[in-house]
Amino acid sequence: MIKTPYLLFLGDAADPLAAKVAQGIKDWRPEYAVGQLRLPGCQADMGVPDMTLQEAKAAGVKTLVIGVANRGGKISQAWKKVLVQALEEGFDLASGLHNLLRDEADLAAVAHATGRVLHDVRVPSVDYPIANGEKRRGKRLLAVGTDCSIGKMYTALCMEREMRARGMKASFRPTGQTGILITGDGVPLDAVVADFMAGSVEYLTPDNDADHWDLIEGQGSLFHVSYSGVTMALIHGGQPDALILCHEPTRTHMRGLPGYALPSLEALRDLALTLAQVANPACQVVGISVNTQRLADAEARAYLAEVSQRMGLPATDPFRYGAAPLVDALAAV
Amino acid sequence: MIKTPYLLFLGDAADPLAAKVAQGIKDWRPEYAVGQLRLPGCQADMGVPDMTLQEAKAAGVKTLVIGVANRGGKISQAWKKVLVQALEEGFDLASGLHNLLRDEADLAAVAHATGRVLHDVRVPSVDYPIANGEKRRGKRLLAVGTDCSIGKMYTALCMEREMRARGMKASFRPTGQTGILITGDGVPLDAVVADFMAGSVEYLTPDNDADHWDLIEGQGSLFHVSYSGVTMALIHGGQPDALILCHEPTRTHMRGLPGYALPSLEALRDLALTLAQVANPACQVVGISVNTQRLADAEARAYLAEVSQRMGLPATDPFRYGAAPLVDALAAV
Repeated sequence: MIKTPYLLFLGDAADPLAAKVAQGIKDWRPEYAVGQLRLPGCQADMGVPDMTLQEAKAAGVKTLVIGVANRGGKISQAWKKVLVQALEEGFDLASGLHNLLRDEADLAAVAHATGRVLHDVRVPSVDYPIANGEKRRGKRLLAVGTDCSIGKMYTALCMEREMRARGMKASFRPTGQTGILITGDGVPLDAVVADFMAGSVEYLTPDNDADHWDLIEGQGSLFHVSYSGVTMALIHGGQPDALILCHEPTRTHMRGLPGYALPSLEALRDLALTLAQVANPACQVVGISVNTQRLADAEARAYLAEVSQRMGLPATDPFRYGAAPLVDALAAV
Repeated sequence: MIKTPYLLFLGDAADPLAAKVAQGIKDWRPEYAVGQLRLPGCQADMGVPDMTLQEAKAAGVKTLVIGVANRGGKISQAWKKVLVQALEEGFDLASGLHNLLRDEADLAAVAHATGRVLHDVRVPSVDYPIANGEKRRGKRLLAVGTDCSIGKMYTALCMEREMRARGMKASFRPTGQTGILITGDGVPLDAVVADFMAGSVEYLTPDNDADHWDLIEGQGSLFHVSYSGVTMALIHGGQPDALILCHEPTRTHMRGLPGYALPSLEALRDLALTLAQVANPACQVVGISVNTQRLADAEARAYLAEVSQRMGLPATDPFRYGAAPLVDALAAV
């Protein structure tokens, strides 16, 4: 568990997109985003106060989060200088970079000497159990997609915000690096060893209040041959009571697989529900989340109306038009 | 790749079952099983010559294979003595034990000093790629089961033997420890990191002759919530042209999951074929392999006849009655 609140390290971000981890924290856990630390040339701005390490310390920050992608696959000396100073000032560090902080000899040595923690959220920090398939208390929702990178994380986060606004009990449960840095906890599922994947999802979504919803971040797609095993582990480890189908209507082929067409929403519904009912016979598909970012407003609304009518399910772009229709459906489960 | 032939180390096996890895090698690759080495009290016998390390050396042995389970989760001093001597005599060591040979300081030091190789087949020794889903030349068969530990490895090995006897090109492709020790090569799939599972199966079954069959060892079950993600990766990474359905008719619940009933063969057929056709639209279900070890002969034959008639597919217990019906069906693909 990463200690909050955070100082967002934006480094020398080449553009705002390079800082999408920081943006995710700012968007979804603004209460954690106390300030930002930028180096000369930084082209990103989260709209929170620029702070020195000393100012962040005074503001109660506990962890410096690397909220930006690094260039050239290495951690530069300019970054190192800040990271070492942050450890010496008493901050933990958290990172989702491919280069692990712990593999940098200088950072590891200073962390050891100062007693600070290096959180490399790209790799598991827990020995997960093998899944036991036992029914847990509380309710769980999983977003499944016709493809990877289609809006499953945003769907869950939008639903969490709407549910909390209504006073419902809901927890976003991250299964990827960005989600883990946003909430400070989760399972980096794509880095878990095969035998323990489903067990790690059980670990992530334990017994809870009967009226509490875990909103599990989906990964991959049942129809994406590179990552479908990860999706399967989410469905069987998560024991969802409710599924949301996620889709992006303008995509012409599966991400990274030019020879593979996207499945229909009907095919996704039928396959995901069949699989989910192995672990939870009561599971239902409750709604459809469409990523309409490439459609004009009128097109997007027309598409949502058509899909909703065709599938007999509420359909929305929760990021653009709000998650209310999905949460309404969930409240009825 | 483990160098062959082997000396089978049976240690102080408490009973024949403890030496099932050695038995598998003896049964399926008898040409590799040049001799056995037994310690006092050993209750297993592979029916091959007992040999000292010196005799094995003279017989051309390259690797000492630990063909027996260890007791109490540690490698005893009595074993260590033999293993160290074997390294000093110039043999590599191969093991599927949970305790890795490389983690034993003495074995690691002697292997380093003598230039010998420690093969711990329980963990991957290759950085597998992410699956690219591209069509490969040659044909592939995968055995899928209604449950785990139901006879998928034996089905593939029985088919390989029958196919080779007919002059067909066939290679058993192991995905578990025992299979890897039997053939000397393979992928320990349950220990592969999630993102690389399907890629490891692609790596295991590369381009081949158009009339060559890879017989891929199945793992887990699509209906076993602990391991279904591994099965999924086999289906999508393996791109099978043919599926064999494996079943054990007397089992009352999924292995290790008392609350979960086994699926019907029809449910397995429909789900596995739907998933397989994502990666290979031409995939077919070609036959049924039934593990009848708990049925008397007449019962077994009656069950096979009933299943074959009901499903419209050849059905056999390949270990008991031969794999010919399955290979006949495969030859027709």
